[in-house]
Amino acid sequence: MTPTYRSGLGASDRDNIWLLGRSLPDDIMGKVSFGELAYWMMTKRQPTHGQMVLFEAVLAALADHGFTPTAIASRLTFLSAPDSVQGALAAGLLGGGSRFLGVTEDSAKFLGGVLARHDGELPTDAAGWDAVALHAVQTAPGFVPGLGHPVHKAGDPRTPVLFRLAREHEVFGAHLSLFEAIGRVHPQVLGKTLPLNGAGVCGAVLADIDIPQGVIRGVALLARCAGLLGQLAEEMSDPVAMDMYMNIDRNTDYRP
Amino acid sequence: MTPTYRSGLGASDRDNIWLLGRSLPDDIMGKVSFGELAYWMMTKRQPTHGQMVLFEAVLAALADHGFTPTAIASRLTFLSAPDSVQGALAAGLLGGGSRFLGVTEDSAKFLGGVLARHDGELPTDAAGWDAVALHAVQTAPGFVPGLGHPVHKAGDPRTPVLFRLAREHEVFGAHLSLFEAIGRVHPQVLGKTLPLNGAGVCGAVLADIDIPQGVIRGVALLARCAGLLGQLAEEMSDPVAMDMYMNIDRNTDYRP
Amino acid sequence: MTPTYRSGLGASDRDNIWLLGRSLPDDIMGKVSFGELAYWMMTKRQPTHGQMVLFEAVLAALADHGFTPTAIASRLTFLSAPDSVQGALAAGLLGGGSRFLGVTEDSAKFLGGVLARHDGELPTDAAGWDAVALHAVQTAPGFVPGLGHPVHKAGDPRTPVLFRLAREHEVFGAHLSLFEAIGRVHPQVLGKTLPLNGAGVCGAVLADIDIPQGVIRGVALLARCAGLLGQLAEEMSDPVAMDMYMNIDRNTDYRP
Amino acid sequence: MTPTYRSGLGASDRDNIWLLGRSLPDDIMGKVSFGELAYWMMTKRQPTHGQMVLFEAVLAALADHGFTPTAIASRLTFLSAPDSVQGALAAGLLGGGSRFLGVTEDSAKFLGGVLARHDGELPTDAAGWDAVALHAVQTAPGFVPGLGHPVHKAGDPRTPVLFRLAREHEVFGAHLSLFEAIGRVHPQVLGKTLPLNGAGVCGAVLADIDIPQGVIRGVALLARCAGLLGQLAEEMSDPVAMDMYMNIDRNTDYRP
Repeated sequence: MTPTYRSGLGASDRDNIWLLGRSLPDDIMGKVSFGELAYWMMTKRQPTHGQMVLFEAVLAALADHGFTPTAIASRLTFLSAPDSVQGALAAGLLGGGSRFLGVTEDSAKFLGGVLARHDGELPTDAAGWDAVALHAVQTAPGFVPGLGHPVHKAGDPRTPVLFRLAREHEVFGAHLSLFEAIGRVHPQVLGKTLPLNGAGVCGAVLADIDIPQGVIRGVALLARCAGLLGQLAEEMSDPVAMDMYMNIDRNTDYRP
Repeated sequence: MTPTYRSGLGASDRDNIWLLGRSLPDDIMGKVSFGELAYWMMTKRQPTHGQMVLFEAVLAALADHGFTPTAIASRLTFLSAPDSVQGALAAGLLGGGSRFLGVTEDSAKFLGGVLARHDGELPTDAAGWDAVALHAVQTAPGFVPGLGHPVHKAGDPRTPVLFRLAREHEVFGAHLSLFEAIGRVHPQVLGKTLPLNGAGVCGAVLADIDIPQGVIRGVALLARCAGLLGQLAEEMSDPVAMDMYMNIDRNTDYRP
Repeated sequence: MTPTYRSGLGASDRDNIWLLGRSLPDDIMGKVSFGELAYWMMTKRQPTHGQMVLFEAVLAALADHGFTPTAIASRLTFLSAPDSVQGALAAGLLGGGSRFLGVTEDSAKFLGGVLARHDGELPTDAAGWDAVALHAVQTAPGFVPGLGHPVHKAGDPRTPVLFRLAREHEVFGAHLSLFEAIGRVHPQVLGKTLPLNGAGVCGAVLADIDIPQGVIRGVALLARCAGLLGQLAEEMSDPVAMDMYMNIDRNTDYRP
Repeated sequence: MTPTYRSGLGASDRDNIWLLGRSLPDDIMGKVSFGELAYWMMTKRQPTHGQMVLFEAVLAALADHGFTPTAIASRLTFLSAPDSVQGALAAGLLGGGSRFLGVTEDSAKFLGGVLARHDGELPTDAAGWDAVALHAVQTAPGFVPGLGHPVHKAGDPRTPVLFRLAREHEVFGAHLSLFEAIGRVHPQVLGKTLPLNGAGVCGAVLADIDIPQGVIRGVALLARCAGLLGQLAEEMSDPVAMDMYMNIDRNTDYRP
């Protein structure tokens, strides 16, 4: 017996195409922005305006950071296989793992874990959040994700913007409250003040606008997808990958 | 001597993050939508409102079509390696090649090639376009890309919407004019009437809103990236990949 | 100042090509088998004959298992993008993660962890190994990797062959001794007898022939690479991916 | 009605595992080398001894060339996502496209195309091959694949070894005969003498040992798979990717 396979995303027949249960041509094309559609497909819920603003702010915050290892890998792959743009894009996305894109997911998981242990009795004021945050930092099994940045040592410029936007658009929830409190109390435990980095705030924002934990890395990957396509478009018109490769080749020290 | 590597996308120092020459936190986050940012990064130009509407309509048109081979490949990869969302996404995007996503790029290239041969003397009325289109169809080396659809035999429902939106927003240019004329004249050459498929119109639209040819497949991949993340989110909450695999396993006919 | 980049694998100049410090054309081509070369590149050591036999037995054991999720993903990707064999191969390898290929690595790590805690005082007879194994099973934080198989419930046919080959070729070391003992003692703890599965034995073998822990998943991927190329070659001559896709499409239950 | 899916590679039931119709544990493990198994899976034929020697010589010839763009891309991906070895391997393989690995496939196709036009009346002596080769070079639509090398300007050291091995092992067939003749006659047409490069000879060898054209790129990818795993193993023990990235970062010239 053949099973049936449920899906609620896209479907079509001879005369119709549906997406998320709506008519794609009549209800979505020309009416729903790409950011909104991405949120909707990942959550099966249409975002509120405030959720939308923060979702797009996070996508902008994570889209591109210049010649990161993933951008370089993508350009070098395009150099080797220029007939396969999808391969060059995929090569870049494959670097979206634990180290460079992982902070966003790790922060959301860490904050979500702390909140789950306080379920039903969340604080209502800053002092209450400080107490929860203090305990969280004291009992963290390792580094607290989202604390510190190798370059923005005096503060990540994305952080205050995300906090402000979340307040203005009334989606400032428990994850952001906890992360903000961690920013206030961690010096008591660690003996030094570290900035709340932007990738970590992005994780808190995504959790507060109801992106499921398993999908949070996916949001970072979508942002990076747009950034990598920018890198590949630039490589097509103003190539640098061959120079990168030749410089490494010239400076190789062969020691078998 | 170490070369320098030019880029005009993202950059940062201790206190600043730039994207496209703007301050990311001050000028982009909360102000520029994700679709606009993606267009901007791929072209290094901010889109007009009309270009933006059409760009997002194309992204919606190409985002998801249910259980396509790429969506199935992505879900099966997630089943095998659930710890690597980036791998499952990349596996799905790798199917974005010549057959299933290629029509968009192929159409833009075909139309662009015809237009290049008529450079400087483009038609100004429908009769003129019909003459150019007739010659293009008669001299096409193989199939005309963008003609016909295996399911939407009586017309792809995305096609009229894209034509209408392009007219309303005044970005209806030479590629769409030529493709529309091909829709009118091809029965004289082929002896049968085929629908202009949506993927082909998307290619004409992207060319008319000034997406460079080499990047057009990238736009389809960005759309598909959002769709695949929707597929993976659905697989996390409502899995079907194991059933797909088991059904294939049960129906294997081993013939060494 | 440009750094230099050390490597001891391949290098070339106008008249020479080196691999692993040897002349590729004079000392390797026609003289070193591909399996031996792979072992050598991954470990920087030429294998003994016994290590070689076991390394190739493991590669054979893991090469292909028919229509696994990774094989299906690879074929579907080839269906979508037949111009990019590398993309179809990569899509299949991306499923080589924690669930389907992970047992080999997990077993090696589990066994290696137990041995590290007994460093310097390893048993010299079966009774001694049984005691170590009993303690390892009793204190395992979760499932013991390598125990049990969904299909080979009465015993994985690869297991006795690997044990026998390792004994015959005198590479039966501490990891295999411990894993064999786990096979003897686990019923005392778990209350039921589970087979030692082949993937787990492969992990023990690879550790005993001195493959570094971080590279063990790589050996499984190399084996799978050959298997996937077999799957793709078969798909080229005797295609089934379109049938798989159409069957899923026909049995979709659209529930937005 | 569910279709059935034919395959002749791997299969298993409760007590057995088959590969290529043989018992994997009884007939293959410990008896068939990995190179032989790979050939067998890709062609469904067991190789002769001569085919095997040449197949493995080609795999060695293509396995690694130091810090190629694909090796660098693979190491940078591992730097970004060290938890996903399969992702780093896949990223490296994705560069195995038209430019860097393509010569092998292109040569086999070019030579195969020439031979197909002479089907049934192939030359029997060097003068005859020279005539065929001369016509092939004169009528080639672009560059003749396999001619010339950016580094080995006075001759690729792999080339004479592959010709010699093919003669010694009696698998020197029509593709090698034609390619050798092209080496003799092309100066008459091109006005300069170019070396026959190793990648091109590999293509001719693979065609002469009966690897199907569609699978030839796959052989290069299998070779590269082993090489990339060597690169990743070296990156784990003696990392350079971070230095590569930091050097590029330091030498970025931001020009928005």
